Amino acid sequence: MATEDERAIRAVIDRWMTATKAGDLATVLDLMTDDVVFMVPGREPFGKQEFAAMSRSGPAPRIDGSAEIRELQVLGEWAFARSFLEVAMQTPGNPVERSGYTLTIYRKGTDGRWRLARDANLLTAKGG
Amino acid sequence: MATEDERAIRAVIDRWMTATKAGDLATVLDLMTDDVVFMVPGREPFGKQEFAAMSRSGPAPRIDGSAEIRELQVLGEWAFARSFLEVAMQTPGNPVERSGYTLTIYRKGTDGRWRLARDANLLTAKGG
Repeated sequence: MATEDERAIRAVIDRWMTATKAGDLATVLDLMTDDVVFMVPGREPFGKQEFAAMSRSGPAPRIDGSAEIRELQVLGEWAFARSFLEVAMQTPGNPVERSGYTLTIYRKGTDGRWRLARDANLLTAKGG
Repeated sequence: MATEDERAIRAVIDRWMTATKAGDLATVLDLMTDDVVFMVPGREPFGKQEFAAMSRSGPAPRIDGSAEIRELQVLGEWAFARSFLEVAMQTPGNPVERSGYTLTIYRKGTDGRWRLARDANLLTAKGG
């Protein structure tokens, strides 16, 4: 049986994907903590401001994708999840399909809402 | 001030690197939980048995490296760390230098010992 916290975290993951597909950056930013750290291979970790700046630069891509949660553990006010993601990004003349795993840490705020706090993104280009 | 748990986790990270350099697989295996999950880009996650099998296959490389802990948070019986690693592996005719970040989750066992439980490894080949 999923606990209330587990359901709330799954809802965050769903809302993240839905807002990303809709190009709704404000909602995505509200689903992460102010001190969030994003980790991807081959570059320095980055935070919320840089995430927003990257999302605003260039033409908005059409994004489709799915996230499948493989493990979710709630540790009091923190939680972690391992997920498998498939993401297709379409900018003019530059379609990219990526897939792979993420290890993500969530934190429950003083407002009772869960938000993404740390994210290690291991996705690679398909066939790459 | 570091707590006792923080000191214990830092000691695990130090012992892991020392045992890896020494080729002491038994000690490394004892520093991870039985249900450990290793995540690296471009392949399926794998566990303790596969880690051991990979470590035993082929000629033992000479390994040197360092780990610098950038963040360590203890969450009761669990903890997570973000670290920056530099690793040089030397097998005959095939030197490889890798660097990058890890997001690692540790768990305190019923024996009171901390062990690595989940690991997302974002290291890439230097200059690659």
